[in-house]
Amino acid sequence: MTLAARPVIPGTRFAERLARAAAATAAAGMDALYIGVGSDLRYLTGYEAMPLERLTVLVLQAGRDPFVVVPRLERGAAEAGLRTPLEIVTWDETDDPYALAVGDLRGGRIAVSDTMLAMHLLRLQAKLGPDADCSLASSVLRELRMVKDADEIALLRLAAQAADRVVAQIAAGRLVGRTEADVAREVRERLVAEGHESAHFAIVGSGPNSASPHHEASERVIEAGEPIVLDIGGTVGGYGSDITRTLWVTGGDPGRGPDERFRHLFAVLHGAQEAATRAVRPGVACSAIDAAARTPIEAEGYGDAFFHRTGHGIGLEGHEDPYLVAGNDLPLRPGMAFSVEPGVYLPGSYGARIEDIVVCGADGPIVLNEASRELHVVEG
Amino acid sequence: MTLAARPVIPGTRFAERLARAAAATAAAGMDALYIGVGSDLRYLTGYEAMPLERLTVLVLQAGRDPFVVVPRLERGAAEAGLRTPLEIVTWDETDDPYALAVGDLRGGRIAVSDTMLAMHLLRLQAKLGPDADCSLASSVLRELRMVKDADEIALLRLAAQAADRVVAQIAAGRLVGRTEADVAREVRERLVAEGHESAHFAIVGSGPNSASPHHEASERVIEAGEPIVLDIGGTVGGYGSDITRTLWVTGGDPGRGPDERFRHLFAVLHGAQEAATRAVRPGVACSAIDAAARTPIEAEGYGDAFFHRTGHGIGLEGHEDPYLVAGNDLPLRPGMAFSVEPGVYLPGSYGARIEDIVVCGADGPIVLNEASRELHVVEG
Repeated sequence: MTLAARPVIPGTRFAERLARAAAATAAAGMDALYIGVGSDLRYLTGYEAMPLERLTVLVLQAGRDPFVVVPRLERGAAEAGLRTPLEIVTWDETDDPYALAVGDLRGGRIAVSDTMLAMHLLRLQAKLGPDADCSLASSVLRELRMVKDADEIALLRLAAQAADRVVAQIAAGRLVGRTEADVAREVRERLVAEGHESAHFAIVGSGPNSASPHHEASERVIEAGEPIVLDIGGTVGGYGSDITRTLWVTGGDPGRGPDERFRHLFAVLHGAQEAATRAVRPGVACSAIDAAARTPIEAEGYGDAFFHRTGHGIGLEGHEDPYLVAGNDLPLRPGMAFSVEPGVYLPGSYGARIEDIVVCGADGPIVLNEASRELHVVEG
Repeated sequence: MTLAARPVIPGTRFAERLARAAAATAAAGMDALYIGVGSDLRYLTGYEAMPLERLTVLVLQAGRDPFVVVPRLERGAAEAGLRTPLEIVTWDETDDPYALAVGDLRGGRIAVSDTMLAMHLLRLQAKLGPDADCSLASSVLRELRMVKDADEIALLRLAAQAADRVVAQIAAGRLVGRTEADVAREVRERLVAEGHESAHFAIVGSGPNSASPHHEASERVIEAGEPIVLDIGGTVGGYGSDITRTLWVTGGDPGRGPDERFRHLFAVLHGAQEAATRAVRPGVACSAIDAAARTPIEAEGYGDAFFHRTGHGIGLEGHEDPYLVAGNDLPLRPGMAFSVEPGVYLPGSYGARIEDIVVCGADGPIVLNEASRELHVVEG
C-alpha cells in the first residue's frame, strides 16, 4: 500500500530547541546540562546515537557554545546524525572523556538527561566533585518536550493511523486456535508493513490474560467465547504509536458472544474513556483527567479493578511527561500529547482496556486514533 | 534447519549468584546493592524486566534477604521472570518506590547497577541523603560476571556458530549491485533464522566505508573490485555473538581481485589477530593482548590506522568487562570471554577487520568462531 509521506523535522528546529534549552538552563540557575544518548539528545540535535559504554554527551554550559563529546569511532556517525551544526570533540580509547565533558567546572548546579546511565552519571559526578548538585534534565526540558509542534503531531498522527490499520487487520483475521505469541508476531510484522520503523510492543491478552494489563503474549491458545486485549505500538519517524482495543471472539457461534457482566463492564469502561477524553482542554490538571476516567468506574463498583494511571505522555519516548495520574496538578497546554487508557480488570475472569493517543487542542481534545472504540465482537 | 538444543541456565545457579553477590558486597564493605533493569538483574535473578520509567530494582542489603521492588502492574511479569525465589514488594501508582527500596538506610556505602537510569539513581541518592557514597555495582559484580560458567560458554558458542553460518551464507550470495542496507537486512533475517532471538547490529562497510569501523549500513551500492567489512551479531539465550570478517568482491572478474596494498594490509592484520589470540592465557594482562595485536601492526607502519582497542568482554552485554585496551592491567582468568578484533583503516581508501569471540581456557585460547579468518575473495 502507499504510505503517507513522512514529515521531517526541519534542521533549523534543532537550533531553536538548543537555544530554548540553553535559555531554560540559565533561567533555572543551572551551570550545565549533560545530555547522554537517548531521546533528549535526539530532540535537541537529531542525533540517534547508539547506547554504548563509551561516553557520548551533549554539553550545554553557561558561557560557551553547546558541543558534543563523542568517541573517535563515532565521529562519522555523529557528523551524519547531527541535524544542526555543533562542535564535535572526539576522544581516543585511552583519553578521559569525562574530563572533556566537564572541563574546568567543579561543583555547581548541573542537570543530566533522565536516561543517562549510572556508569556515566557517577563518573561525571566524580569529576565535578562533591559540591555539585545534580538533578534531572527533565526539570528543564520537560516544558519544551511536552508541548509538541505541528511536525511532531503529524508524526504522532501517522503513527496512530498506522496502528489503527493494524488493529482493523487483526480484528478481521483468524484468531481462534492461534497462540497469543503467534498473533503478536503478526502484529509486529503488520506494524512495520504499515510504516513503523520498528514495533516496540504487542500485548495480546486473551481470556483470563486480559485481566493482566502488562501481560505479554504467551503460548496460550485463543478460544472462542472470550475477550482479547490488544495493546500495540512502535515508532514512525521516532514518534510512538500506542493503541489498545478490546475484541471478543465468538468463533462464529452467536451463542458465544460476550456475557452480560462483560457487556456491562465494557460499557462502563467505554463511558469512562470518553469522559476522560472529553475533559481534555487547556488548563485542566492531569489529575483531573485521571479522575474523569476513575469516577464513573468507581461509581459502578469497579474502583479496585482499575489500578493503573489513566495515561502517559508520548513522543520520542513511549512513556514521557505528562502523566495522567492522581497527584499530578500540572495543567494541560495545547500541544501536549498523551494516552487516555483506563482499564477494568477482574483477575481470574477477564478485563478490558481502551486507549487512544490524544493531543490537547486549543479548544479541547484532538483524538489521533480513529479505530472504533466499541467492543469489537468478531468471529476471530 | 535443525538448531542445536539451547542450554538453559539452571534455576539453582541464580541462588548461587545472589549468594556470591551478597558475599562480595559485604566483603567490599558495602551496605547495599541496588540493581535496576538490565543485564545485572538478569544475571542475578533471570528476570528480563522491561526498561520503564516505573522503578524495578533488586535490593541486596546487609542483614536481610534480597528482595525486588516492582510496580504492581509488573508483578505477574516478575513472578514469571524470576528464576529464583525472592520476596516481591509491589508499589501502586501513587506510592514512593524509592522509599520501599531504601527503607531506613541513610548514608552508607552503596552501589548501583552500571546501566541504572539517572532518573532512578538520583531519586535513590536523594532518599539515601547526602552522606551516601555511591559507586558502580560492576566494582562488586565484575568479578562474578567476567568469568563465564560452562552453560554461559555453551550459549556463547551457539551464538558464535550461528553467526559463522550467516557469514558463510552472505559470502556465498550475491553482493555486487546491492546496497549495504539491503545486505544488512538479509544479515539480520539470517541471524534470526539461524537461532538468534534478535539481531543487534549488522555493519556492512563496502569500499571506502570499510575504513570506518563503526560505519552503519548505508544506501551505497556495492561494486566489484572492493572490500566489505561485515561485523554482525545478536543474542542466543541472552548471550551475544559478534563476528567480523572481511570480504573482497570481484564480480566474477579475476582482474578485480584485491590489489597488492590490500593484500599486504590484510596479511599484517591477519598476523596481528592471530598473535593476539595466541597470547591469551591465564595471568596475561588485558593490555598485553592489546599490545600483541598492536605491535605487529605498528611495525608495518599502520599504527595510526588501528585506532580502537583490541577487544571487549561479551556475555549478557554486547560490550562488558574485560576490555582489551592499553592501561588495563587486569590479568585474564579461565572463563573470561571477549572479542579479539584488530583493524586497519586507511580513510578514503579502504580497511579491514577480523574479529573472533575467544574464551580464556586453562592452557590458552578457546576460539568460539570457526569461520575462516582468511580474506574471503568471492564473486559476490
